[in-house]
Amino acid sequence: MKVGLIGVGLMNGSLALDLKSAHPSVTIYGISRRASTLANAKELGLIDHQSTIDEMKDMDFVSIAIPVTATVDILPSVLNAIGPNTLVIDMGSTKTAICESVSEHPKREQFLACHPIAGTEFSGPEAAIRNLYQGKVNMLCETQKTRPDLLKRAHAIFTNLGMHMREIDPSEHDRNIAYVSHLSHITSFMLGKTVMEKEADEQNIFDMAGSGFSSTVRLAKSSPEMWMPIFRQNKHNVIETLDEYISNMEHFKSLLANDDYTTLVEEMKNINKIRHILKPENKTNGK
Amino acid sequence: MKVGLIGVGLMNGSLALDLKSAHPSVTIYGISRRASTLANAKELGLIDHQSTIDEMKDMDFVSIAIPVTATVDILPSVLNAIGPNTLVIDMGSTKTAICESVSEHPKREQFLACHPIAGTEFSGPEAAIRNLYQGKVNMLCETQKTRPDLLKRAHAIFTNLGMHMREIDPSEHDRNIAYVSHLSHITSFMLGKTVMEKEADEQNIFDMAGSGFSSTVRLAKSSPEMWMPIFRQNKHNVIETLDEYISNMEHFKSLLANDDYTTLVEEMKNINKIRHILKPENKTNGK
Repeated sequence: MKVGLIGVGLMNGSLALDLKSAHPSVTIYGISRRASTLANAKELGLIDHQSTIDEMKDMDFVSIAIPVTATVDILPSVLNAIGPNTLVIDMGSTKTAICESVSEHPKREQFLACHPIAGTEFSGPEAAIRNLYQGKVNMLCETQKTRPDLLKRAHAIFTNLGMHMREIDPSEHDRNIAYVSHLSHITSFMLGKTVMEKEADEQNIFDMAGSGFSSTVRLAKSSPEMWMPIFRQNKHNVIETLDEYISNMEHFKSLLANDDYTTLVEEMKNINKIRHILKPENKTNGK
Repeated sequence: MKVGLIGVGLMNGSLALDLKSAHPSVTIYGISRRASTLANAKELGLIDHQSTIDEMKDMDFVSIAIPVTATVDILPSVLNAIGPNTLVIDMGSTKTAICESVSEHPKREQFLACHPIAGTEFSGPEAAIRNLYQGKVNMLCETQKTRPDLLKRAHAIFTNLGMHMREIDPSEHDRNIAYVSHLSHITSFMLGKTVMEKEADEQNIFDMAGSGFSSTVRLAKSSPEMWMPIFRQNKHNVIETLDEYISNMEHFKSLLANDDYTTLVEEMKNINKIRHILKPENKTNGK
């Protein structure tokens, strides 16, 4: 199997590690804007060869995992370049704009829009880890537009990685993911900002911040190059989540300011129910 | 050594497990409002005997780990009850009101105000775990008001648990901890609330929420009985952090609404610096 990776960071790098384990005969061709990134990916054993868009014509499977605005820019040219037997997927955290960018493309049926719900706060080839996708969900959009044999191939590859497939409409995906992913990245970034602005003496953070703070602020370590384009492309939905979140914050503040502790406790008890909705941590971590 | 635990949940229960390992001859006396909680603590082997405030007079060491408003209520009576050789500490997440509640007490010198920066989102005796305090920081307030021999005893106990001691003024403690702990609990609760309000179909959360969301919303599982009193007692500082946080949120939203992506990326890059300030996760987890 010949696999082309456009972007060789956390997502495609981790994919490469698992593909190499599952298919010893796979050959992996990598593309990246930065020569140094490609060199790192090669040194880390993620890719076998540096490649070009033109060479994607010989691939069985091409995975695009780059900033979502760049995906929209490059996806039509990738489809132009591929041969008749190539499957192309993307792993972006937004789906509407990406699906729209090739909706009229003559090779639309060779593309499958994916969003594996997997990742860490780290980025780049060095961030690649084994089993990132094990036990995780892969959201698939507009599967009816993908050629059945290629859709079947995608299913086989992802199932082999240990993933569970779910189908979802692109706009529903973007609306929901704004709540369960994009918003939590912004709340983390703003928590980090608020604390850093207050604590001129960094040692105070170091001493007094416990595992709770580390957990809540973890996503503030995420790559701006990857995340700004996501917020930008999903701007309408993200702003809606921010409005609702800020309104909830203001409400909480007013309960506290007005000493309405009965309502405060009631609200917190209601929110506690998230215990039963969330997957257990160890399952979420794919262990 | 005779140890009295007022409150037998996560904090004192975990303390009991480690004290029993470190001092095989320790006998632990537990006090709780709820008979069922005490029974659980005994069944779990956290305490040897159920006890009363009056019996605290024979203890070498009394640890209070209950909601901070209850600590303020009970601390004077505990000091009234103890013998001349008893050390009393509290583990509350606020320090000003607790220190003030006994500032004029004739046995003030037998008390040490502590805040171990340790915990999980779980509560009750079942939440007790070994090595919770290993490698963690214990913030000590007004140590000059504690009798030197008792302060020395406290240091010995905590050092034996693997803790590092830091001294801090109570009001400085409360101001800083509002940022690195209380605020992050509220941002988590409000994230949980915003998502739960939106997603009537809980399966959508289950499917699309990844480890990033789990991490950011983890503290929303925390006990309202424990946390409302903290927000209440530290109201002034907490409202200040909320004002700054909401203002940062509004600013982020306006950058997005105005398509000012250059500034957005610059801000996110600045916040990324928190990578170098935070302790590494494994250290934070005390592993």
